[in-house]
Amino acid sequence: MENNQIIGQLIANWQKQNEQFQKTLDTISNEKLIEQIAPGRNSGLYLLGHIIALNDSIYPLLDLGDKRYPELEKTFIYTPDKLGQELFTPQALRKIWGESVINLTKSLMTIKPEEWLQKHTAVSEENFSKEPHRNKLNILITRMQHQAYHLGQLALLKENQ
Amino acid sequence: MENNQIIGQLIANWQKQNEQFQKTLDTISNEKLIEQIAPGRNSGLYLLGHIIALNDSIYPLLDLGDKRYPELEKTFIYTPDKLGQELFTPQALRKIWGESVINLTKSLMTIKPEEWLQKHTAVSEENFSKEPHRNKLNILITRMQHQAYHLGQLALLKENQ
Repeated sequence: MENNQIIGQLIANWQKQNEQFQKTLDTISNEKLIEQIAPGRNSGLYLLGHIIALNDSIYPLLDLGDKRYPELEKTFIYTPDKLGQELFTPQALRKIWGESVINLTKSLMTIKPEEWLQKHTAVSEENFSKEPHRNKLNILITRMQHQAYHLGQLALLKENQ
Repeated sequence: MENNQIIGQLIANWQKQNEQFQKTLDTISNEKLIEQIAPGRNSGLYLLGHIIALNDSIYPLLDLGDKRYPELEKTFIYTPDKLGQELFTPQALRKIWGESVINLTKSLMTIKPEEWLQKHTAVSEENFSKEPHRNKLNILITRMQHQAYHLGQLALLKENQ
């Protein structure tokens, strides 16, 4: 029971973080979004694509099916910031972001409490028996931190108060 | 048992995040640390002080005793970036950061698994009965996300690769 509660809390925090992300995104114009967050650093558009692509990789990792947007991976994970602006408009990425969050959260909610403590798909049975923390829950926890890390950067594109 | 495991995982993630924070801090020189992370934004020094002060507020919130560095609060939580550089050198804040992480983690480890699900000190019994997620664990989860948010910003002061 308590176990359920903690997992419920983590998912609630995931949802809250996505709301905060959406709120931040809503305050940044399309013109601002394609700017670099700091001189010589990634653009907001790249960070947005990067977060969508990373979140999308959660599906196969948690055994929830295939990636929904495999075409984003090359541009926003394996290539530094350059291709993104040629291939995706801010409008298109905002739309994908909105859909992707709703669908991923729905999928996460189908995982049963006991399944969260089972191994994720990128670790072997052998290694999992030695490192039982490499479970599905760990993916959620570390991805939330990763998203918060980039959200702090994206927020730099908000207008100075 | 599983409950213990999840709490153990969260604390392990907290420790890992602190290691990452330390690593980032180690790659930023004192001269760089007093610079703004982006034009018109907070300095690295301010963010470092802000994180220490916020972490320090975890002691009373989790009923672990008084704040260890109450003098940081005014400068790094209630005042925007300006006083910090007059009052604290990068060297002094780095030293406090190092100590504060070790001591806070030690304190967190004294909390028993069942205590993590009890209310934190800033919520009333009445509100807690309606909102049982406002427990000690929630403080840890949200503070980890807050720290990751600012770590992403601090990392902008690292030399461009």
